[in-house]
Amino acid sequence: MPREHRFTFGLWTVGNPGRDPFGEPTRAPLDPVDSVRRLAELGAWGVSLHDNDLVPYGTAAGEEERIVARFEAALAETGMGVGMATTNLFGHPAFKDGAFTSNVRGVRRAAIGKALRALDLGARLGAEVFVFWGGREGTESGVAKDPRDALDRYREAIDVLADYAVAQGHRIRFAIEPKPNEPRGDIFLPTVGHALHFITTLQRPEMVGVNPEVAHETMAGLSFAHAIGQALWAGKLFHVDLNAQRIGRYDQDFRFGAEDLKETFLLVRLLERAGYAGPLHFDAHAYRNEDEEGVWDFARGCMRTYAALAERARRFDELPEVREALAAASTPELAEPSVENEDPAALKA
Amino acid sequence: MPREHRFTFGLWTVGNPGRDPFGEPTRAPLDPVDSVRRLAELGAWGVSLHDNDLVPYGTAAGEEERIVARFEAALAETGMGVGMATTNLFGHPAFKDGAFTSNVRGVRRAAIGKALRALDLGARLGAEVFVFWGGREGTESGVAKDPRDALDRYREAIDVLADYAVAQGHRIRFAIEPKPNEPRGDIFLPTVGHALHFITTLQRPEMVGVNPEVAHETMAGLSFAHAIGQALWAGKLFHVDLNAQRIGRYDQDFRFGAEDLKETFLLVRLLERAGYAGPLHFDAHAYRNEDEEGVWDFARGCMRTYAALAERARRFDELPEVREALAAASTPELAEPSVENEDPAALKA
Amino acid sequence: MPREHRFTFGLWTVGNPGRDPFGEPTRAPLDPVDSVRRLAELGAWGVSLHDNDLVPYGTAAGEEERIVARFEAALAETGMGVGMATTNLFGHPAFKDGAFTSNVRGVRRAAIGKALRALDLGARLGAEVFVFWGGREGTESGVAKDPRDALDRYREAIDVLADYAVAQGHRIRFAIEPKPNEPRGDIFLPTVGHALHFITTLQRPEMVGVNPEVAHETMAGLSFAHAIGQALWAGKLFHVDLNAQRIGRYDQDFRFGAEDLKETFLLVRLLERAGYAGPLHFDAHAYRNEDEEGVWDFARGCMRTYAALAERARRFDELPEVREALAAASTPELAEPSVENEDPAALKA
Amino acid sequence: MPREHRFTFGLWTVGNPGRDPFGEPTRAPLDPVDSVRRLAELGAWGVSLHDNDLVPYGTAAGEEERIVARFEAALAETGMGVGMATTNLFGHPAFKDGAFTSNVRGVRRAAIGKALRALDLGARLGAEVFVFWGGREGTESGVAKDPRDALDRYREAIDVLADYAVAQGHRIRFAIEPKPNEPRGDIFLPTVGHALHFITTLQRPEMVGVNPEVAHETMAGLSFAHAIGQALWAGKLFHVDLNAQRIGRYDQDFRFGAEDLKETFLLVRLLERAGYAGPLHFDAHAYRNEDEEGVWDFARGCMRTYAALAERARRFDELPEVREALAAASTPELAEPSVENEDPAALKA
Repeated sequence: MPREHRFTFGLWTVGNPGRDPFGEPTRAPLDPVDSVRRLAELGAWGVSLHDNDLVPYGTAAGEEERIVARFEAALAETGMGVGMATTNLFGHPAFKDGAFTSNVRGVRRAAIGKALRALDLGARLGAEVFVFWGGREGTESGVAKDPRDALDRYREAIDVLADYAVAQGHRIRFAIEPKPNEPRGDIFLPTVGHALHFITTLQRPEMVGVNPEVAHETMAGLSFAHAIGQALWAGKLFHVDLNAQRIGRYDQDFRFGAEDLKETFLLVRLLERAGYAGPLHFDAHAYRNEDEEGVWDFARGCMRTYAALAERARRFDELPEVREALAAASTPELAEPSVENEDPAALKA
Repeated sequence: MPREHRFTFGLWTVGNPGRDPFGEPTRAPLDPVDSVRRLAELGAWGVSLHDNDLVPYGTAAGEEERIVARFEAALAETGMGVGMATTNLFGHPAFKDGAFTSNVRGVRRAAIGKALRALDLGARLGAEVFVFWGGREGTESGVAKDPRDALDRYREAIDVLADYAVAQGHRIRFAIEPKPNEPRGDIFLPTVGHALHFITTLQRPEMVGVNPEVAHETMAGLSFAHAIGQALWAGKLFHVDLNAQRIGRYDQDFRFGAEDLKETFLLVRLLERAGYAGPLHFDAHAYRNEDEEGVWDFARGCMRTYAALAERARRFDELPEVREALAAASTPELAEPSVENEDPAALKA
Repeated sequence: MPREHRFTFGLWTVGNPGRDPFGEPTRAPLDPVDSVRRLAELGAWGVSLHDNDLVPYGTAAGEEERIVARFEAALAETGMGVGMATTNLFGHPAFKDGAFTSNVRGVRRAAIGKALRALDLGARLGAEVFVFWGGREGTESGVAKDPRDALDRYREAIDVLADYAVAQGHRIRFAIEPKPNEPRGDIFLPTVGHALHFITTLQRPEMVGVNPEVAHETMAGLSFAHAIGQALWAGKLFHVDLNAQRIGRYDQDFRFGAEDLKETFLLVRLLERAGYAGPLHFDAHAYRNEDEEGVWDFARGCMRTYAALAERARRFDELPEVREALAAASTPELAEPSVENEDPAALKA
Repeated sequence: MPREHRFTFGLWTVGNPGRDPFGEPTRAPLDPVDSVRRLAELGAWGVSLHDNDLVPYGTAAGEEERIVARFEAALAETGMGVGMATTNLFGHPAFKDGAFTSNVRGVRRAAIGKALRALDLGARLGAEVFVFWGGREGTESGVAKDPRDALDRYREAIDVLADYAVAQGHRIRFAIEPKPNEPRGDIFLPTVGHALHFITTLQRPEMVGVNPEVAHETMAGLSFAHAIGQALWAGKLFHVDLNAQRIGRYDQDFRFGAEDLKETFLLVRLLERAGYAGPLHFDAHAYRNEDEEGVWDFARGCMRTYAALAERARRFDELPEVREALAAASTPELAEPSVENEDPAALKA
């Protein structure tokens, strides 16, 4: 696998132990350092992580330093990069009703504090993007949160964090990751569109983009290629989460390409044509009935599928019959302005 | 029915003859003037219309003037207003692959021309909002349109139309109506979020808002109350289409309140609390198996349901047990800033 | 295209003029005789038809005979067969609230009468299967029909029709076609499972099977391969409707293979392995933005995709790595009984 | 709360600690005996349980007897019944690829053995129904299991278990609980219809019915009232799982009545009119952000909502305007046969 593409995997993806709402883990936890080494061997460019993927809750300060230094050494040794870092604001019971949009001010402050520490960690590890996935920012009982207040608090939190990042000189950009539901009944900023709009309301919009995820848009039955199209059009595709999902289901995070090959092809073709140069992050996991060795087959397969589709997309666009079909469909004509230096009223005739 | 609320109905809603993809009409067409009179009697504030709801395709110029003048007379006689006007850019075969985003430049120009004429008609009738529903702006075969080109053309069309409206002195605002799919496999600007973002890219963003429709967000399983919340938060709720829909189905346009009473209540409560003062537009129709008299029961029922829910929302918020529950949930605390004039770094502790 | 597979097309599929709920036809109607000839040239085995695809509503008796005889001549001339016949009990306003389950007894009797005449026509044309798609048998307002009464009436109608077919000596089998919704809010017998169960309650269950359609199960997000699996397991797969659909959307009837290639592959592999020998019926239509010549590309493409997947399925099962993977997954072991001639209580240990 | 209705709660429902795929528990585990007492105080009729809700995995034999005896004492003391018992064949890693339909014969035998022991426990506790929910009986990778083999094995397991129950003299009936997906990509017997059909293929069909669950049919967007209608029509509604769910989402198990009030009303009205006398089982849980005392509010609310809707349904059917509307819709006429002692051919005229 040549490092032509910057493939990354979350520590939590290859490390997923197969726990689900109805069943216990089927695989043992992985040491993050082992994951880094194994992924490097397979040809990945880097990894991604939540703060607590590396440093478990409740780790003492000295121990934290030891963990992080050991991880840095593994990165250095393997030449692996960190595509993105993020913070887990969804697992702890304190965040059960939201983090940045918890009704309880103290919880919101704790969430911002945790994000600030995670931002420092991400910057230290050289992450180019810091992702915000607000999985708990939502409602089941809609009366409990005025959505306008919730958006005010969400914006406030991102503004505070962006100011801090600038003040610290962290060279990192932010990316908002939308999701329509699960684990909340309805999550704020449910789609790429909502997140793109939200970003325009921030104090530092230039520093914030989106991190669309195949599974999340697909849960709502939306075209992922169109979502990526609008994000690219806006200059806001800072990161992307690649996996597979069937419409209208629980969050499946299947191996990239495992579902909807047509939309997957459209996605890869668009990313390649647009020259997207950010990390290609596989936020997926092996099926729960896969064994420990199968995890690495899974990781290899994600990368191989992307590379194969990228190659197919190139060839597709060179095929004479494709060129003819696109010409017959007047596809290139869509790039031409409809109106040029003329009085629009003349079009009424 | 007191005119406390500005209820409006599209001419095409009460006039819906019950044709569907599998069956022929079950009701006779209505004369728009009769609809205006009947709706006035029922207590509606006004009507809405597509250009071709009033002036059929191919009407001669003189005949058009006679039709419009007769319609104006009916409005004057009944005191009815025009909540919104729009243009039908989806019915004619010419628009089979899009109007503003057709691959064929000539079609795009024809679409803009038709919209310009409809804008003049809307302005003449005093419509306060001009709606754009791009039902044909989409794809089934994703290779045929680069979504970035499509968004360029969409933006260009709205910019041209806004310039024209300003140049003409039309006192009218624009509202984009999103929809995820049907009649196209995937429609551009599929949700309220995508439309809100798109508006920020326009040359005259201040004059353009959104026209969210219950059925359209619900098809994608998104919370309509949250969509309205983000639109209100952005100051962009210029118009609203009220009806009912089950998630994950064909566009049903059922009577307001006919499905999902909880979300409907949340919606009405939010509109009322926010002081939304635009038209409350019922974009719905009677069931196809309803007879001609039943259409007016349907119209009466839409208004009665809204008014009843508005009254319930008022009483709900006054109930002691509701106040206690909201206090227990810390709901008011969500309106308080999380951070105030302090060094964010202090939150890390 | 060799006639190895018995490919059939409904007259209404290639003849689909492109009308949809929001737009007028984009293609001219076709003469059924021309469709037969054209499909024969393309390598199809036969056609299918609703009574009114061939004989329009209100045709005089003498004219009907002329139409049918001319159609028979075209079949004879081309060697084309009739895969299935059916009756349109959904288009006419009389059936707006159901046909066999209309609340109005007179409508139910008219529906049975129309089905009897269509059955005679189907038998005359040599159709091997007569399909019942109860598109209007459902509700939007659930109080209006007790579902138990509706199922009684549905069963009664099928029983009466089966008795008649036997009495007439018609050599034809029946197939029930399930669908979850559209054009009704909820349709009775919404899935293959419901139809399979319903059949067990009939007086002549042996003569009735199912006609599953890709689009219909997929609308509800159900696995079509599993549905076909249960139908085959029950010995009830009498006919199959092939097309493509995205989950949770309006009834799309896209070209076979246009969506969800993985499930399509699983379907073809299962049909081929099971030795399904009935008609392979494409109940699909060209995209509305396709032109008249494109309709025949569409038809050719449906057949080519099936044939290509059948060939791939054969090769897939011969690949050493597939055999190894299936062995590793213990797939063949699932065919072995779990318990054999032993006291089950011994398993408790 | 009078015990007019036989309300039951699973031990796992009030005892749900709030763990979800993204977060840790927010509530402490409950002692089953405490749950029995508390539910008795609230007016429930009884409880339901999985084997491992009461007897954790790995409990020694003597300890098991002590646990069960203590639980029996609590039932006796409170007068609470056991509505149903079942076995957990989804949580342990051994069942990661299925239990009765695992590809591995040894796993299938272990699953049958576990079910046999749970059946003995259920019979001892006086459970009237033993439920089979095959949550792991499915696939993500469809090639790995021929669905026909899987149905053979499923049927074999139920047949063996039914024989055993009869041989032991257990006075208990079986109920199959369908679900379309989660935790598997696609689960066999996905809907009430599929399960009703499956039952007709068993060796002792008379002893097996269905246990439909609101959330499970609703995930697939199917009408739950229609599903219950077909189950009642077949005489197969042996048990029912009441909760709430939005279409096309993860399995939410919300409080009964929390979503889709219209369908909930239709359901209660149908159960009451049909004289359903089995347990009314709430298979739901409090929101994860609810505290420990709120769990009992949740339980009280489930029962209160059912009782209130049952009362409303009674009054609804007595309202003159409802009677008039049903008469206008010819609803009673649907109970009349369409054809009576006549030659069907006469209907053709």
